[in-house]
Amino acid sequence: MGRSALSYKIGVLGGGQLGKMLAQSAADWNLSIHVLDPTEPCPASICAVHHKGDFRSYEDVLQFGSAMDLITIEIEQVNLDALRALKKLGKQVFPDPESLAIIQDKGLQKLSYQKWGMPTADFFLLDDWRLLEKRMEVERFDYPIVQKLRKDGYDGRGVQLIHSAQDLSRQFQAPSVIEKKVSIAKEIAVLAARNRSGAVVTYDPVEMVFHPEANLLLYQQTPATIHERQASECRKIAADLIGSLDIVGLLAVEFFVDTTGKIYINEVAPRPHNSGHHTIETCITSQYQQHLRAILNLPLGSPKLLQPSILWNLLGAEGHSGPAFYQGLEDSLSRDGVYIHLYGKEMTKPFRKMGHVTITAPELESAVNQWLEIKEIVRVISIAD
Amino acid sequence: MGRSALSYKIGVLGGGQLGKMLAQSAADWNLSIHVLDPTEPCPASICAVHHKGDFRSYEDVLQFGSAMDLITIEIEQVNLDALRALKKLGKQVFPDPESLAIIQDKGLQKLSYQKWGMPTADFFLLDDWRLLEKRMEVERFDYPIVQKLRKDGYDGRGVQLIHSAQDLSRQFQAPSVIEKKVSIAKEIAVLAARNRSGAVVTYDPVEMVFHPEANLLLYQQTPATIHERQASECRKIAADLIGSLDIVGLLAVEFFVDTTGKIYINEVAPRPHNSGHHTIETCITSQYQQHLRAILNLPLGSPKLLQPSILWNLLGAEGHSGPAFYQGLEDSLSRDGVYIHLYGKEMTKPFRKMGHVTITAPELESAVNQWLEIKEIVRVISIAD
Repeated sequence: MGRSALSYKIGVLGGGQLGKMLAQSAADWNLSIHVLDPTEPCPASICAVHHKGDFRSYEDVLQFGSAMDLITIEIEQVNLDALRALKKLGKQVFPDPESLAIIQDKGLQKLSYQKWGMPTADFFLLDDWRLLEKRMEVERFDYPIVQKLRKDGYDGRGVQLIHSAQDLSRQFQAPSVIEKKVSIAKEIAVLAARNRSGAVVTYDPVEMVFHPEANLLLYQQTPATIHERQASECRKIAADLIGSLDIVGLLAVEFFVDTTGKIYINEVAPRPHNSGHHTIETCITSQYQQHLRAILNLPLGSPKLLQPSILWNLLGAEGHSGPAFYQGLEDSLSRDGVYIHLYGKEMTKPFRKMGHVTITAPELESAVNQWLEIKEIVRVISIAD
Repeated sequence: MGRSALSYKIGVLGGGQLGKMLAQSAADWNLSIHVLDPTEPCPASICAVHHKGDFRSYEDVLQFGSAMDLITIEIEQVNLDALRALKKLGKQVFPDPESLAIIQDKGLQKLSYQKWGMPTADFFLLDDWRLLEKRMEVERFDYPIVQKLRKDGYDGRGVQLIHSAQDLSRQFQAPSVIEKKVSIAKEIAVLAARNRSGAVVTYDPVEMVFHPEANLLLYQQTPATIHERQASECRKIAADLIGSLDIVGLLAVEFFVDTTGKIYINEVAPRPHNSGHHTIETCITSQYQQHLRAILNLPLGSPKLLQPSILWNLLGAEGHSGPAFYQGLEDSLSRDGVYIHLYGKEMTKPFRKMGHVTITAPELESAVNQWLEIKEIVRVISIAD
């Protein structure tokens, strides 16, 4: 580790739950974490030094970063020009601003996958939204299609399914990617890590389990119920991709598996990711410590999975907006292997990520059974209601 | 958990490494931890709110505690009268000041074990140090004996072996406990937790492994190499003792096993303990989360051990005093299942606890082998040397 890495002042753009858990992990090595976030207090405030400011603002990022030795991110919608300027000032910036530039633009992402021969759904880029149907004809695309905004989409926002010409009225009126709709059988995520020396590790694939009818994520489970061959393929793609994108840090790669078993890259995130929360309790090296190892150019840790787990996002209940109140936590804590993480967001609103619950068990089935009970008990509501 | 426990302002007397790891754990539940410590910065500063002050001072403790909902400790040498006053003010204080009063006085500790019929080395209390030899004659004690200061001993200080009358010149000249020397075969520690409702759990015994010749702790290992019957006996005693002492929180109980296999209580500590550090990585519930569950009257978590481990204290190297520098950490991080914890103490000195390393492995033997290599590589030295 040497003296320098241990004494680094690390700045993180964003002070949400990912920044918070990164700071908790960094405290093991007595690494001081500073976060830039407009909200006060932000989730990371509890264990990081909070600097109030906007990670999308050139001035704020430049000023914040100037006082740091190393700048990293917990959200990708950050000001790239400021990061470029910080790099020129001799600051270490991970991931590199040019890698982020590709990821911030879903069009460039898709073109890169194409260039690198990586599997992804057929697409074309649409600059002028008025030309959608003409372009579909030329490209021989049929409905349904998926429209994704090239920029500023986040966490599912900026993505929509267009079933037919009747849906055209709600088209995004901005540059977008138009994709053929994959017949999705499964959704998988693989986390890769790469340090400055180019060493790469990948974690076991995680499966997103959806409600059989509603398009609603129920929980994430590890291990995923895919074939060993598919798991290896996903891990191989994630390892190749983090290298091709020249990312130092973490890259979460989300995949579709279609009804014929074929794999497609859906989206990526170059940072700690929701699909890696379970690693805190279930893997030899958590995604947060792994990110620190990567950006500090330490040896990467083993990503080995020690126990199966269910990861359940604690979302704000529908119909509740206001100061958050957590129902049923005491009951859930009476169960073995149930880990509650609360993000410290003061206000809840429907579907806001307020925390998560990791459920570990020697067998996945026991964890699922615990979840079936816990999901009926734990709720994030507003005390104002 | 309810709204109240989640919104508690928790004050901890002491801001050392135990307070730091408690605060790291508390961040999972977004519990804000405040620590009272005279050193600035103290190890806990990185993830707790630090209040500068002396936990031995009546005024400092009273003022600090008055702004809290609940007061707990990470060191037992705290001002009891202030805690009694805080309790009268309606604050929750765990452990109770009267339990602490017994533990702060090794004489009262021993009398309590005697009263409760718990196994401990034969002893007498010595008020006037000049009367040692006379009392030994009356009590029929032979050398060697162990002299323990009744008050203010800590972490091995205030305890000495008196081999013969020739050693009498270095007798502690203060009220003490005189014990018959046990022929120690093994040293064991068991951690117990008890919540406000009286529920109790105990952890698997930990064994202190000493150098075969020098009286030097090499490492702690879990599980301990004692018979199942002895392990059960130690756990039973720890469970009984936490109840008898009426402690809410944690109680670490250190035992001697003599050469005939008999068990003796040596000392206790009513707080997170060095012998429980491994629980962070190896048990379903860490000692830190368990302490929070206990004092917040939440259901206690499973203490189940998931993996064997070695716990090695990172002590300041002999001959080195000054700003701390950690040698060999990078190499140690390239090994699977090696967890580094640095406490953030700026200055090292010989034998100061600067951090710890937990080594986990599927088999204890592999962890020991890792340790044999790591101990040759990792050193805490001073860069000023």
